[in-house]
Amino acid sequence: MSYELYYWDGIQGRGEFVRLALEEADAAYVDVCRGPVGKGQGTPAMMVIMDGKSDFNMPFAPPFLKDGSLIIPHVANILMYLGPTLGLAPKEEGQRHVLNGLQLTITDLVAEVHDTHHPIATSKYYKDQKEEAKARASEFVENRIPKFLGYFERVLQQNPHGPAHIFGDGLTYVDLSLFQVYEGLRYAFPRATAHLDRRYPHLTALHAAVMKRPNIARYLRSDRRIPFNEDGIFRHYPELDRDMA
Amino acid sequence: MSYELYYWDGIQGRGEFVRLALEEADAAYVDVCRGPVGKGQGTPAMMVIMDGKSDFNMPFAPPFLKDGSLIIPHVANILMYLGPTLGLAPKEEGQRHVLNGLQLTITDLVAEVHDTHHPIATSKYYKDQKEEAKARASEFVENRIPKFLGYFERVLQQNPHGPAHIFGDGLTYVDLSLFQVYEGLRYAFPRATAHLDRRYPHLTALHAAVMKRPNIARYLRSDRRIPFNEDGIFRHYPELDRDMA
Repeated sequence: MSYELYYWDGIQGRGEFVRLALEEADAAYVDVCRGPVGKGQGTPAMMVIMDGKSDFNMPFAPPFLKDGSLIIPHVANILMYLGPTLGLAPKEEGQRHVLNGLQLTITDLVAEVHDTHHPIATSKYYKDQKEEAKARASEFVENRIPKFLGYFERVLQQNPHGPAHIFGDGLTYVDLSLFQVYEGLRYAFPRATAHLDRRYPHLTALHAAVMKRPNIARYLRSDRRIPFNEDGIFRHYPELDRDMA
Repeated sequence: MSYELYYWDGIQGRGEFVRLALEEADAAYVDVCRGPVGKGQGTPAMMVIMDGKSDFNMPFAPPFLKDGSLIIPHVANILMYLGPTLGLAPKEEGQRHVLNGLQLTITDLVAEVHDTHHPIATSKYYKDQKEEAKARASEFVENRIPKFLGYFERVLQQNPHGPAHIFGDGLTYVDLSLFQVYEGLRYAFPRATAHLDRRYPHLTALHAAVMKRPNIARYLRSDRRIPFNEDGIFRHYPELDRDMA
């Protein structure tokens, strides 16, 4: 039976971290909201679960994964659940929690990226919080990008199995998520990220290696990969971008 | 062997969610930063691990748990790891992920609480972002408290085993975390939360039930329970508080 991924249509957003893992593993899945309305697909099918009027536990927000009778919400949770089955995580339980710790740091980074364009209110438009967004984005570029990417670079560098992967000696879902973060930051902040290769060589090499993996390359060429846009998490607003110190 | 909990001394903060689970289960643990400096305890012992100069994987941020040779960072991750051992989570793996999904929604709520007093920059003082904090806190009180607490109230109400617990028919670590959220919101926003009992009766009942549990009551009376203060996550700044619509 196929996995069912529920996420807003039209954006990469948080759903993309799950898509990359499913695509790398060539897993059978339905991207429910992108399917035809009325056949148990489309956004209305997601809203039935969100509204808590089905038999399933309602999640607080998309994305969530449906696997048979189980509903699993939150990106890191979905990836931890799928990881061993997709061959993208260690099977040993303690090690799975170490990997999950790395993914949850990505979760925090992604939330901060979102808040660069919505620092005051998710319920309001970007244009209504533009001045505050400038201040928050400036802080993000100056302090938070270096802190987060510097951390991941150090973890790569200190990996006893070598810097090709963030954990152990093989590909995990966190490597795929780091690829997506790297892509997203470069899309949203091209000026700030102009010299990532010099600052973060291991992260840059990991990004390039993931991009060349056959299943990922095929996915990125397909129409399943939605282009970045200004409705997603990573948005390119030139007024929020600046050179890094 | 005792668990070692690493978290900033002097605040409840994010560490408190872990402490409540360890205390409820009467588990042996050392609150490392609160111990005597120089005997492998105190904040310097935490910084050695944070700096990545030990043999252990360095976490991005506290809290983290050390269990033998394993370092587990992030609250939800620590609780998911400890849950089955402490008797505060289902043993079945799929169900553990459902529970983890609820905890991760609390993680998101806690991050939003933090941002009510630090909407622009974690690196700056509250007084330097006070105007933006007022705007963000206003949004938080008006839209986000009702959205989050309304969600948990609905999950309690729809629990097929009854509304006494957020998941299944017994106590889990998510119940303990909901107690802490309820306490913290009432401390930080006494005006906004003046009528939680009328709005969220099941959540209110859960809070009261957790508070009366013998091990929790003993902990709350002990000096291990640090009082809320304005260095933690839940801070009482009267100018950020207001009546709920």
